[in-house]
Formats: sequence, C-alpha cells, structure tokens
Amino acid sequence: MNPNEGDVRRLRVELGPQSYDILIGPDLLKRAGAEIAARLPGVRCAILTDENVAARHLSTLTDALTEADLSFETKVLPAGEKTKSAEYLLGAVDFVLGTRMERGDVVIALGGGVIGDLSGFVAGIVRRGMKFVQVPTSLLAQVDSSVGGKTGINSTHGKNLIGVFHQPSLVLSDTNVLNTLSEREFRAGYAEVVKYGLIDRPDFFEWLEENWQAVFAGGPERGEAIAVSCQCKADVVARDEHEDGDRALLNLGHTFGHALEGATGYDSRRLVHGEGVAIGMALAHRFSVRLNRCSADDAERVEAHLVATGLPTRLSDVPGDMPPAEALLDYIAQDKKVHRGALTFILTEGIGRSFIARDVPSSEVLAFLRECT
Amino acid sequence: MNPNEGDVRRLRVELGPQSYDILIGPDLLKRAGAEIAARLPGVRCAILTDENVAARHLSTLTDALTEADLSFETKVLPAGEKTKSAEYLLGAVDFVLGTRMERGDVVIALGGGVIGDLSGFVAGIVRRGMKFVQVPTSLLAQVDSSVGGKTGINSTHGKNLIGVFHQPSLVLSDTNVLNTLSEREFRAGYAEVVKYGLIDRPDFFEWLEENWQAVFAGGPERGEAIAVSCQCKADVVARDEHEDGDRALLNLGHTFGHALEGATGYDSRRLVHGEGVAIGMALAHRFSVRLNRCSADDAERVEAHLVATGLPTRLSDVPGDMPPAEALLDYIAQDKKVHRGALTFILTEGIGRSFIARDVPSSEVLAFLRECT
Repeated sequence: MNPNEGDVRRLRVELGPQSYDILIGPDLLKRAGAEIAARLPGVRCAILTDENVAARHLSTLTDALTEADLSFETKVLPAGEKTKSAEYLLGAVDFVLGTRMERGDVVIALGGGVIGDLSGFVAGIVRRGMKFVQVPTSLLAQVDSSVGGKTGINSTHGKNLIGVFHQPSLVLSDTNVLNTLSEREFRAGYAEVVKYGLIDRPDFFEWLEENWQAVFAGGPERGEAIAVSCQCKADVVARDEHEDGDRALLNLGHTFGHALEGATGYDSRRLVHGEGVAIGMALAHRFSVRLNRCSADDAERVEAHLVATGLPTRLSDVPGDMPPAEALLDYIAQDKKVHRGALTFILTEGIGRSFIARDVPSSEVLAFLRECT
Repeated sequence: MNPNEGDVRRLRVELGPQSYDILIGPDLLKRAGAEIAARLPGVRCAILTDENVAARHLSTLTDALTEADLSFETKVLPAGEKTKSAEYLLGAVDFVLGTRMERGDVVIALGGGVIGDLSGFVAGIVRRGMKFVQVPTSLLAQVDSSVGGKTGINSTHGKNLIGVFHQPSLVLSDTNVLNTLSEREFRAGYAEVVKYGLIDRPDFFEWLEENWQAVFAGGPERGEAIAVSCQCKADVVARDEHEDGDRALLNLGHTFGHALEGATGYDSRRLVHGEGVAIGMALAHRFSVRLNRCSADDAERVEAHLVATGLPTRLSDVPGDMPPAEALLDYIAQDKKVHRGALTFILTEGIGRSFIARDVPSSEVLAFLRECT
C-alpha cells in the first residue's frame, strides 16, 4: 500500500445509479490499477492519451495496470485543441472497436481537458456507452472537465457543440502530476478554481486570496483547493445533471471567454481556455457593475486577485489584434447558451453571489464591449 | 379536426422524465404539426429524410408544420443502409448546427430505420442532446427502431456499433404511409411483428397466424398489430432502458440475423434486416430444438407462419453464396451482444417462451451452423 494513501481525499458525486468517486491526492497514478480493479474487476482498458502526457506519465499508468492484472491497449493522439475534432474522434472510436472491447470494458482518459472530453465522448458512443475512467493530468481538467459528465468535440460552428453527457465510473486526480505542468498552464487551470469561489463560496475566494501561493507551490493546500473545487462543481451537477437550470452558473466567465477563444481562432499561443475564463470573469463582474448589480469594489477585488496570480483580465492583455465589439457579440450569440435568441449571461451581485440572467439585451452587451475594446 | 382521429391509438412509453407518446393511426402525417406543437410549442424543426421518402411524404409533413406555425429546415439524404455512416452523420450534424437551432429545438426523422437511427444519433449529440421526434415510414421502423431510444450508425467493425441512447419526445406512426411500401419491405417489417409474439406473447402469435392477411391488406388489424408490437417493446424497454438485462430478449433472431447481414455485405438486393431476422428466428427455434429446449412442433409452426407470409427461413433462401459455418461464427462473435468472450443467444422453450442463454458454447453453434449450410 502506498504510504501517501492517508493524504488521499475521496469525494462522492451523487447521481443515483451513475454516482462515482473522485480521488484526489499525491501519487494516485501509481495506484490507478488497484483503484480501477477494485471498482471494475477484470476489466479491459483502452487508454487514450496525447503525446506530451504519454512521454511523462503513460508508463506509470501502464505499470500500475499491469500490477493489478488489468490488460490494456493504448492510442496516443497529438497534443492540442485540434485533437477535439470529428477526425480524431472517429479514429479513436475505430481504435476502441478494433480492440473488440465490450460495453463493460473501460476507456481511460490520461490527459488534460482535450483528452478527457474526447475520450468521454468515445466511451459514450462506442456500443452506445462503455465504462469510463478519468485520469486528469492538468489542473483545469482536475477541477472542471473531469467532473460533471460533459464530453464533446469542437465543430466549425463553435466549441463543444457536439457531444454527450456520459458520467465516469471513477476520477483519479494525482496532485503530483501537476508539478510537470508549465506555470502558464497551471495558472490557466487556477482561473477555474477562482470561479468556484466567485459563484457561491465567498469564503473560498477569501481563502484563495490568502493561500494561492501555497496552491501553486504544491503543498497540501493544492489538494484542498482541488477538493473544494470538485465539491462545488459536483454539488451544482447533482442539482442539475443535464444543464437545464442551475448548472449554467458554472458558465461564469465562459460566455465572454468562449467568444475570446473564438476570436483568437483557438490559438493557444494567444489565449488558452483558462485565460479566456479569467478575462471573462473580470468582464462579467465589470458588466454587472455597469448594470448596477455589483459594487465596483468587488469587481476590483476580483481583478486584483487574478492579476496577482499573473492571469489576464482585459481584452488588451491578449497579444495581437482583437476584432471589433460587433464581431465579439456575434461570437457570443453563436455560443450554445443561447435560448430562443435571448442572450443568457452569468452575472453577479458581488463576490460569491452569481446568478443567471436570461434576456440580457444585446444592445447592453454591445455598448459594454465597445467600452472594453 | 381530422375525421380519422378516433382511429388513433395512443401508447405511453413510461421512462420517468423521458416518457413519451407513440401515436398510431391513419393520416397522422397530416396532423404532425398539431401534435408536435401541442407538446413542443414554438419549436424549430430540422427535418432529416431520404430521397425516396421525401418524394412521397415530405410535402405532407411540411404542410402540416406550416399549418401549425412551426418553422423548419430540411436535409434530404441518400436512401439505403450506407447512409448510416460516420460521413452522413457528420454531414447531418453540420446541417443542424448550421441552422443555429438550440437544445430545445427538434430533429424530426421522416423515414425508415436508417433515417430514424441516424437522426436520433444526430439529435443525441448536437449540443449534447436536442429534442427528437420520430415519424417512421416503414413497418420495421414503426414496430421496432422508433421505440426504445437506440440510435446509431454502422462501423467497418459491424452494425450499430456507434451510437447513443436518446429517447424521442413523440413518435407518429401513420399506418396509411405503409401503403407506399413495396411488398418485400412490408413483409420484412412484419418479421419483427412476429418476433414480439415469439418472445412472450403466444396469444399474439396465434392472432397473427389468423389475421396476417388483414394486417398486410391495411385494415384496422394493421393498427392493432403495430400497437401490440410497440406495447411489447415499450414494456421490455421500460424494464431495462439501457440493455443490461431483459432487453436482450428483443434480439431474438438478431444474433444469427446480424451475422447473415454481415456475410452478405449488407447488400439489400440479397437480404434486408427483417429477412435476416426471419431466418434468425427460424434458426433460433431450430437451434433450441437441437439443444432439447424447444419442441420440433413449435419450431415447425414458426417456420410455417413465416413461409406463409413469404419470408425466408433458411440460409439457402438467401440468393448467392453463403460463407462457411466458421465464417458465420466469426460474424456472430463480432456481434455486440458478446459478454467477456461468452456467446449470448436468445433461445426459446417454445412459442412465446424465449429466454436469454449466456455462455452458449461456440462448438454447439458451429456444429448447428454446419448442419444448416
């Protein structure tokens, strides 16, 4: 038994027959085989990963599976957002079908959000649904995409427009794996951690203001921040599995953020998802101030914390030219959180007091964006 | 109001929040707009159909939608099993995304099983799930694929291996539309009607022996046969939505049937799905006789009824060469109803007394197939 086992936190995501565990702690990758075998005895494993993650972590995972007497086959995909496409989806589906694995066998996603979203979609559609285990290797994936069952790929019409809801059987979040991330990547994931404080946990936001350096450094505070984030998300998901209501709160910062990602052509050299969310959250607070729903003090405090960690908060923080406000509005209107033509935004009445605003007039959004650009 | 409304039968498929109505009766296509608008007011409609069905029925549907003030856009796909492919799936997804319809809008499948399975898959994955309405235009689709939420496409690895479970909001089965089917197509669909009698309704099988000619002719017996078939399937589905248990009974005749479809390269000139199921059901009964589970009298009675309606019951009824028994066994082993390498068959103890047999030795299957070929 691993000496670190005592440091492992276990969260239960309650979704009736689809309930599952999230384990968070150091060196979990080494125990992946035992944890999977305990829940899915004798299962065959189809591992999907990307070339960067494979170079660093694949052998640790496969050693752990072998130790637990689980057989596996592996497909290594290119790293990057472009892999979340129909082409790679079909290639991965074909790989899994080619292994002749069955419905009770498992697709393991070893990687960040791209691999997690793609693999979950694969697991969701091969034989109309196989088992699925997430081993998220980025902070973003550990606190966001690995919880909630959303899977999918991008389309020429927009991001994440094709996919299914498919819950994992288990999530293994190894906190030490995050030491191999670049500072920029870790920071981008941290934007989603901040988001949970801003949605409905003002105490957590305050705790982050005090402890963010320890979270970045990798102390026990890191596990704590991830666990609280997953719990926040799990609570929202349990209330609203298929995003008919409250789950929309998780999109705080995402409507603006997705528009910025679209406007920069999903070019990660200019902007990665978490950076878009950071700017989006800052904009959502400033937009709420403009609509007289939030105090300027709170908006400034949010911006100050994001800036302190090195995250961008303004359109001008994105390198290269931004399109005019009208074009950004078009990207927003194209976002999937549109209902019958009305714009839906997550706005806020202050730190930890976000709410869903339906029917936000596009003229207000346009005027605000003109001020920002 | 349509004078035929009194002839419409309404079945409720009980699946909790995914419960829905199946309406069965003459001239329902003309009332499609009203029935959809009553359940999904103000919805936008993306119609998927094939060129054959479009020529006969599309204008009736679009007139009905227009009359109910529902807007629509249409994509006409090629007719035939080849359309159940990744290529056409992605094209249809792109079409629906291009209409900028939203999650609450509806994909309407106007066509047979191919269009229904493809369209349901499209509805299941665009924006992680749109509304879905089935307007099945073949007998096969009305009694089988339109009930139960299975959707999907074929893969080079086999039939229906990629898909999701996605329940419709409404199924409209117009019994008069079936008058435009070829006799061969109607007869193939009838094989699935017989199947429900053979699974667990011996009285229904007896009723069919007496009334099949009226069902073929289009009298009220046709609506009755379709309604009983849908009820049988809905009962099984309600017990087992995701095919973990009892739902496997619906595969009576399908393990042999799928193997024959594979062995004939899905060439509809040689064999269509329902014909494969007819042969498969006859084989399943004879195989059960061989295993001393079923009386020879019952197997002969099943074969006699299928033969009376003009359906094939023997491998030699398929035009062209059949591969040897070993190759057929390979097709069977490739079928998705394989669990951990053991062969699962639906066998029977007599008419209306089918059961799930797991761990059927492949040597027995091979010996039986050798006798048949």
